[in-house]
Amino acid sequence: MAPPCCHDGRVHRSNDDATDRSNGSPPGPGSDFLQLDIGEAPTGGRADWLTRQLRLALADGRLPVGSRLPATRVLAAELRVSRGVITEAYQRLAEDGHTVGRGRKGTIVVAVPAPSGRPLAPRAPAAGTAAPHRGVPGPRGPSAEVFPAVPGPDVYDRLRTAPARIDLTPGMPDLGAFPRGAWLRAERSVLSGLASSHLGYGDPRGAPALREAVAGWLARNRGVHADPAEILIVTGTAQTLTLLGEVLREAGITRVAVEDPGSLGARQHLSGRRLGILPVPVDTEGIRVDALRATGAPAVLVTPAHQFPTGVVLSGSRRRELMRWAEETGGLVIEDDYDAEHRYDRPPVPALRSMLPQHVVYAGSVSKLLAPALRIGWVLAPPGHHEALTAAKRFADLGSAVLPQLVLARLMESGELERQLRLLRRRHHRRRDAMIQAMAAQLPGAVVHGAAAGLHLMVTFDADLDDTELAAAALAHGVKVQPLSWHTLGGYRPGLVLGYAANDAGTIRDGVSLLGTALRSLVGRAAAPA
Amino acid sequence: MAPPCCHDGRVHRSNDDATDRSNGSPPGPGSDFLQLDIGEAPTGGRADWLTRQLRLALADGRLPVGSRLPATRVLAAELRVSRGVITEAYQRLAEDGHTVGRGRKGTIVVAVPAPSGRPLAPRAPAAGTAAPHRGVPGPRGPSAEVFPAVPGPDVYDRLRTAPARIDLTPGMPDLGAFPRGAWLRAERSVLSGLASSHLGYGDPRGAPALREAVAGWLARNRGVHADPAEILIVTGTAQTLTLLGEVLREAGITRVAVEDPGSLGARQHLSGRRLGILPVPVDTEGIRVDALRATGAPAVLVTPAHQFPTGVVLSGSRRRELMRWAEETGGLVIEDDYDAEHRYDRPPVPALRSMLPQHVVYAGSVSKLLAPALRIGWVLAPPGHHEALTAAKRFADLGSAVLPQLVLARLMESGELERQLRLLRRRHHRRRDAMIQAMAAQLPGAVVHGAAAGLHLMVTFDADLDDTELAAAALAHGVKVQPLSWHTLGGYRPGLVLGYAANDAGTIRDGVSLLGTALRSLVGRAAAPA
Repeated sequence: MAPPCCHDGRVHRSNDDATDRSNGSPPGPGSDFLQLDIGEAPTGGRADWLTRQLRLALADGRLPVGSRLPATRVLAAELRVSRGVITEAYQRLAEDGHTVGRGRKGTIVVAVPAPSGRPLAPRAPAAGTAAPHRGVPGPRGPSAEVFPAVPGPDVYDRLRTAPARIDLTPGMPDLGAFPRGAWLRAERSVLSGLASSHLGYGDPRGAPALREAVAGWLARNRGVHADPAEILIVTGTAQTLTLLGEVLREAGITRVAVEDPGSLGARQHLSGRRLGILPVPVDTEGIRVDALRATGAPAVLVTPAHQFPTGVVLSGSRRRELMRWAEETGGLVIEDDYDAEHRYDRPPVPALRSMLPQHVVYAGSVSKLLAPALRIGWVLAPPGHHEALTAAKRFADLGSAVLPQLVLARLMESGELERQLRLLRRRHHRRRDAMIQAMAAQLPGAVVHGAAAGLHLMVTFDADLDDTELAAAALAHGVKVQPLSWHTLGGYRPGLVLGYAANDAGTIRDGVSLLGTALRSLVGRAAAPA
Repeated sequence: MAPPCCHDGRVHRSNDDATDRSNGSPPGPGSDFLQLDIGEAPTGGRADWLTRQLRLALADGRLPVGSRLPATRVLAAELRVSRGVITEAYQRLAEDGHTVGRGRKGTIVVAVPAPSGRPLAPRAPAAGTAAPHRGVPGPRGPSAEVFPAVPGPDVYDRLRTAPARIDLTPGMPDLGAFPRGAWLRAERSVLSGLASSHLGYGDPRGAPALREAVAGWLARNRGVHADPAEILIVTGTAQTLTLLGEVLREAGITRVAVEDPGSLGARQHLSGRRLGILPVPVDTEGIRVDALRATGAPAVLVTPAHQFPTGVVLSGSRRRELMRWAEETGGLVIEDDYDAEHRYDRPPVPALRSMLPQHVVYAGSVSKLLAPALRIGWVLAPPGHHEALTAAKRFADLGSAVLPQLVLARLMESGELERQLRLLRRRHHRRRDAMIQAMAAQLPGAVVHGAAAGLHLMVTFDADLDDTELAAAALAHGVKVQPLSWHTLGGYRPGLVLGYAANDAGTIRDGVSLLGTALRSLVGRAAAPA
C-alpha cells in the first residue's frame, strides 16, 4: 500500500514520479528550444528532467533575464509529452523565483543563478558591487528586542535534560542508519594515503579536499555554484551563527530579524553574541517580507527550504520579495539550509544562495545527513564578510578537526553520501507516515503542518491549551516533545514540534499514543469542575 | 655514544638514571619514615622512586603543611643509599614548590597538592572560598597595553605562509610517528560497540569516556587530581584561550599579564577577545613574580613546565611566589601546559594546578602528543569559572566532535598514548641532539636555551642583528624559522625559535647548515662598507 501523505492536515497521495502519468507517448524528436531531447529523459521522471534542463540553461546563460519560455502547449507538443509535465517544470522554476507568469505574455525569466565566484545582481546591477553592507547604518538604538535567555526556565530545563523512554524532540536523523562500515573504510583509506604534513594544524578554512567535495555536493544537490575558496568549513550551524554574530557586530549590525515561529536554538546563538532579535511572522507562504521590511532590520535569518518549525516552503513570490528586499536595502539574508535534502512529496527547491550570492550567507551541515556527533558544517558568506568570517574561525579554534573532514570528503566524492541520503529518505518517509497515521487515530483534533519534507512535523491544537503543560504531561507519561511556544516570540496557536526520523515506527506509534493520553488528561482536567 | 645534552649553552652529559651511580650497596631494611622500603625501588631509579613516594605522602595527607622531612644524612643511612639520592628527591620537591630548606631547621613542607574536587588553600585558607574573583575590580582604565595585531605585517605574513623546503618553526611533534594503525583499530572498536544515541549532539562538556580518561592521564602524568566533572573537552588551547577570554571579560577582567618573551599566538587569542596584554619579563628562573605583582594584573598566562620560547622551567621559589601572589591578590593563573610531557634531561615537574586548583586554569591538548589535526584539548577551570566556561563552549560549537574523543579515550585507557609518548621522547631526543650538534658546528656564536625538554629550543646571538632579517634570509635559503622578536614585547636579544621534533636528523642538519649560510651572509653584509 502506498503510504498517505499530508500537508497542513489535508491527506492526499504522493505525486512523486507521477507527474507524467497521463502521457504514454513514445519519445519524440524533441524541441529546438534548448535542443531538448526527450529521449534523454527517464520515463517516470520527465518533469524532473525538464526542470533540470531549464535550470542548466538559466545557470549557463542560455536563458538570460527577460527571456520568455515557450508556451506550455507548444513545448508539450514538440516534446510529445503531456502538458502537465511542462506545467510542473515551469511551476518549479516559478517556485525557485526564477520566473514569473505574465498571463497571456507567457512565462518570463526574472532571475538567474549567479555563476561561481562572481556576484551577480539579477535585477539591480548597481547593488552587485563590493561591500554591500557599507550603506548599513550602525547600532539603531534600543528598539531591538533582546530575546529572553530561556522560555520558562524551570520547565524548560526539565524538558530539555530529563531522560524519557521515547524521545520525539526534533532535529535528529535516523542515527541507526549512520554508515559505520563506509566511514571506517574511508578513514582507513585516508590514513593509509595521508602525508604526515596533513596531521599539522591545517588550513583554518577547512581541508581543501572537503571544500572541493562540498562545492560538488552543493552544485549537485542545492543548485549552488560555489568556488571551493568561498567555502568555510565549520563545526556546524551553531558555530556559523556564533561566528557570524561576531562578524556582524564588528560590521555595526546589532539586530537580526528571525522567523516567528522560528528555531529557539538559532535565536539563542545569535543573542549569545548580543544581537537584538526582531521577530517576523511566518504564514503559509513563509516569512512575511512586508513585516520584515517594517522592522528595518539589516539582516534576517531564514529557513526557506523547510521553515522551522512550521515546515512551510518559502513561495516563489516571497523568494522574489525577499531578494528585492536584500537588493534595495543592502540587507543580508542568512539562509539556514538545515534539512533541505530531506523531501518526500515535493520537488527540490534550490537554495536562495544560488540566486543572490552577494546578499546571502549560506549555512549547511551533515548533522541531519549523517550525525550531529561529527560536528561538520559549512558556510558561504558574501564577499564582504568572507574574510572576517575566516578570521573569526581561525581565532575560535584554528580550524576544525582534519581527519573527519577528509573522511567526509571521500564519502562525498564516492557517492556514498548520496546513497546515505536516499536510504534516509526511504526510512524517514516510512517513519513520517507512521507518525501521521498514529496522530490521525490518537490526536483527532490536531492539525499537521509541514510534513512534505524534513525530519519533523508541527501539530497545532484548536483547543485552549498550554503547550508547555502538554509537553510536561507527556514527559510524565514517558514521551519527550517540544512545545511550539518555545519557538515563538509573538504568540501562536498551541502546538508541538515532533521529530519522527530518529525512532522506528513502533516507537513512534507508542509515543503518539502516550501523547494522546497526556492530551486527554489535560483536556479532561480543564473540563472538570474547578 | 650517549648524545650530549645542553642547557643554556653549557654542554654536559644527561643525568637521567645516573642519580645514584655512586651507591652500590644492597637494598637495606628501609626507614620508619613513611615506611619506605628501598627494596621496591628499581636500581638506577632510586631518586625517581623516592620522589614519587614523597609526592604520594604529600598528596594523601601523610606529610601535611608544616611537617619536616628527615635530614638527608639520616634518611640516606636508613635507606642505605648515597646522600645524593635523597638530596635529588628533596630538590625536586623544592622545585615543585612543595618544600623549602630552612637551613639547620631542615626541609619543611609548605604546600601540598589539593585532593580531587575540593579546593584547598595551603597557606591562606580564607582565599579558598568560592568565587575568588569577586574582589577583583573591573576595567582598570587605559593602562593596559593592547598587543599590536601582528609584528611587522609584511614580513610576518611571508614568514608565516610562504612554503619552504625545510620547516624549522616550533610547535609541531614528529607527525610521522602518529599511530595510524592504533588509531584505526581503536576507531573500529569504538564504532562497533557504539550505541546510536552517541551519534547525536552529545555532552557539550565532552564525551564522559574521554573526561574519565583525561582525569587518569592527568593524575598519572601531571600530578593533577581532577574529577572528570571538572574537565571540559575543547578543540585545543587556542579555543581555551578564546573561550576563557570571553569568560574573563564577562567577569570584569580586561587585562591579562603574559610572559615576555612569550607565545605570540597565545597573545593573539587573548587580544582577539579584547583583553589588554601586560608583558612581564622572564629570567632564568621563569616569570618574574615581583614584576607581575607590579602590573596589578588580575590574571596571568604562564607556561611553567617549559616556558615558551625560552624553555626555562619555573623554579621552586618562583612557583611559591606565584602561588602567594594568587592567594594574596585573588589572581588567576592560566597554566598552558603545552609540552610538559616532553622532557629529556630533567625530572618531571607537576602542574601548578596540582597545588592550587582554586586559582589555576589548566590547559592541555594532544597537539604535541599525537597531532594538532585532531583538535582535541582540555581545560580545568577553578569552580568560580567552570560553569561560565562550559556555557561558552556550548554557545561556541555545542561541543567537540564525538568520534575522535572516543577513539582518544581508548588510546588513553589502553596505555597506547603512554607508549606513543615514550616513542616520541626517544625520537625527539635524537632530533634535538642532532640540532644542537649542528648548531655547535654551524652557528658558533649562538647560545642555546631551554633544550632539556619540549619540541623546540631557543638560540640567541650576541651580534647586533635583526632577527626578522635573519629569518627572511633563511627563508630565501629555503629554511623557515621564527624570529624571537615575534614572541617579545619588551625587547630581548636577537634570536630564533627552532623546532626540531618534526624533522629527521638529516633534514635538521641541512636546515641548520643553510641557516649558518644565511647568518654569515647577513653578518658579512653588515661588515661590508655601506
